[in-house]
Amino acid sequence: MPTWSAPVPESLPSAAYQEKWSAQRLTFVLIHGAWADAGFWNGIAAHLRKMGHTVYTPDNPGRGPDTNKDVTHAMITRSVADFITSRDLQNIVLVGHSFGGSVVQTVAQLMPERIKRLVFYNAFIIKDGEAVADEFPPAALEVFRKLRESSMDDTIMLPFPFFRETFVNLASLETARRIYSGIAPEPAKPSYDKLDLKKFYSQNFPASYVYFTEDNVLPQGNSEYGWHPHMSSRLGLFRLLKGQGDHLTTAKTDPGLVAARIYEAGRD
Amino acid sequence: MPTWSAPVPESLPSAAYQEKWSAQRLTFVLIHGAWADAGFWNGIAAHLRKMGHTVYTPDNPGRGPDTNKDVTHAMITRSVADFITSRDLQNIVLVGHSFGGSVVQTVAQLMPERIKRLVFYNAFIIKDGEAVADEFPPAALEVFRKLRESSMDDTIMLPFPFFRETFVNLASLETARRIYSGIAPEPAKPSYDKLDLKKFYSQNFPASYVYFTEDNVLPQGNSEYGWHPHMSSRLGLFRLLKGQGDHLTTAKTDPGLVAARIYEAGRD
Amino acid sequence: MPTWSAPVPESLPSAAYQEKWSAQRLTFVLIHGAWADAGFWNGIAAHLRKMGHTVYTPDNPGRGPDTNKDVTHAMITRSVADFITSRDLQNIVLVGHSFGGSVVQTVAQLMPERIKRLVFYNAFIIKDGEAVADEFPPAALEVFRKLRESSMDDTIMLPFPFFRETFVNLASLETARRIYSGIAPEPAKPSYDKLDLKKFYSQNFPASYVYFTEDNVLPQGNSEYGWHPHMSSRLGLFRLLKGQGDHLTTAKTDPGLVAARIYEAGRD
Repeated sequence: MPTWSAPVPESLPSAAYQEKWSAQRLTFVLIHGAWADAGFWNGIAAHLRKMGHTVYTPDNPGRGPDTNKDVTHAMITRSVADFITSRDLQNIVLVGHSFGGSVVQTVAQLMPERIKRLVFYNAFIIKDGEAVADEFPPAALEVFRKLRESSMDDTIMLPFPFFRETFVNLASLETARRIYSGIAPEPAKPSYDKLDLKKFYSQNFPASYVYFTEDNVLPQGNSEYGWHPHMSSRLGLFRLLKGQGDHLTTAKTDPGLVAARIYEAGRD
Repeated sequence: MPTWSAPVPESLPSAAYQEKWSAQRLTFVLIHGAWADAGFWNGIAAHLRKMGHTVYTPDNPGRGPDTNKDVTHAMITRSVADFITSRDLQNIVLVGHSFGGSVVQTVAQLMPERIKRLVFYNAFIIKDGEAVADEFPPAALEVFRKLRESSMDDTIMLPFPFFRETFVNLASLETARRIYSGIAPEPAKPSYDKLDLKKFYSQNFPASYVYFTEDNVLPQGNSEYGWHPHMSSRLGLFRLLKGQGDHLTTAKTDPGLVAARIYEAGRD
Repeated sequence: MPTWSAPVPESLPSAAYQEKWSAQRLTFVLIHGAWADAGFWNGIAAHLRKMGHTVYTPDNPGRGPDTNKDVTHAMITRSVADFITSRDLQNIVLVGHSFGGSVVQTVAQLMPERIKRLVFYNAFIIKDGEAVADEFPPAALEVFRKLRESSMDDTIMLPFPFFRETFVNLASLETARRIYSGIAPEPAKPSYDKLDLKKFYSQNFPASYVYFTEDNVLPQGNSEYGWHPHMSSRLGLFRLLKGQGDHLTTAKTDPGLVAARIYEAGRD
């Protein structure tokens, strides 16, 4: 883990720590977002494991080390579904961050019998028949359209000034640059693929929304766009948790806080 | 007090504590909400008394130990009004939580000369001629209608899964169950009684709104429903205080925080 | 500095403090709001200087010690602009609080080449052709109209009860009175002057919005009025920072917190 991440406790957790954070031992599957890979979860997963939970962090095709950028939303869904079925995971708390929320939706409807609860962490919740990009405000859509057209391989790479103000607004410049240096151009298709989510909305999955309140990726307090309450309300009945933090930085600088909120969101 | 409540300081408060939290010695009358009784206030009242304030927590008819569920909003209003006049309480800071906000409105307009200030703590502020239920979103109204119809005595009992996600979303499962075990079926009528609030809105009561921001009972950030700013704005000029917490848990797990915000809301 | 302000660290900051808060040494010009003068910034400026930054806090004509109340928005703009050009300040982080946000807009468009970044701290961001008063909700407009008409010199003095609930809602009564005792009647014209802001909106100034979430001066969570997201969204791409605090008190009781947020807003 890079030195700019907050440290994970080395020693065994105390009995009081166990009692507070491990009353239930849960199985988490954590789905990262766009412009990210499974490394996004490093600090958070380490904290959850220290609490005594079992944690899986599958990579998505087209992201991270994968150099094939010709992927679709269905390929990502299939990849995560295969990861779960090949290990025969059961009673899963399926957690999605950002774009990963849409993957939580598509994977959950494929295997409702394996799902204990869904957790959306500043994550997309897409309407049936729509795409992740349908949740981008017009100005962002226009920026992304130009970036996509200017790429050689149908990807979108965020310019640093845009990334710095919106994805890592709480970071120091040094931390912002370190996080930015780890991201790769994002395959465009998965964000524009229309999703059939009829099965998702016909199930009543137990669900939680974890909202970090300084997230600046989508407009706040708006009835047409935004994480909470705009998309969270699509869950119908859901458990709400909040924290102080932004879209990407807090996972690196305060992973214990994020892990705590995710545990509180995932427990019964 | 049950062991799962946060402890109340035993020793006499220090001079610095007194200076911070008791600059004014106030008389509080605390009105609990639905699916609750005066025990809701135990921890908060203990903290306020430790600060040096005088605190009353009248029970409502139809709630708590009262087995007669055939009550109306007017009966609750009368009960609280009689409690106040029989003790000849003056210069009252009248505090309502949740449904108790509507009782604060109806009691205050009966005896404006006894009121120093009104404090609404994640509480209903009803429009003239409307009912508490007019502030429930359509999905909740439909759930409550069915629960009401299925009862033998015109009451509504919240199912645990609904209660757990919306009333005690921050609680551990153990704390959620302990709080749930203390609630009784709620008489339906008081929530559906239309209220004449002309006198309330013709007075300019000094008023404060205390908003705990992880409250998940009503939709957030919505112009049609919700505690703040939707209902708080009906006060016209009011003092705003915020805290981190949910609808019921925080009163039990962090009563000192709630007491501090209520004091800050109630002082001049 | 009055004793009711939080203390500023006397000793030289430690190396760790320097590393955290002074990675960049910045030049701040801090523009105060209405019913205020440069003394508003005392605690905040002291903290920023302790971090190693260079800080200027120009007074506005018509405010503070100035007894001539016959001023316009253009005169305030000119005064701040002259302050900056006479000192030949460069690479400025220009910060506005409240009304000062509109001055940040008008000064920035006069001298874009001197601006490094704009920071709005619970501050007005006015639309081209409009006035600060166009952001007041109707009830406030009506109160201000009467106060203005009743003055001898076209000023508006806030009555204490209104000021106490909205500008210093988090203060103790003693602190509220001390802050109130320091304010003078506000010249009305600058708030009603229509502003030509075409150049402001044609530039893409790097910009940040610092939002203290218990500010009760403007309605919250409303699409027509309010600091954030209503006015902040006019910046287009901007960096968002939040803090817990109200409109005026927090600058006095926790200036270190405000200084930290302003540094985080101002750095690259």
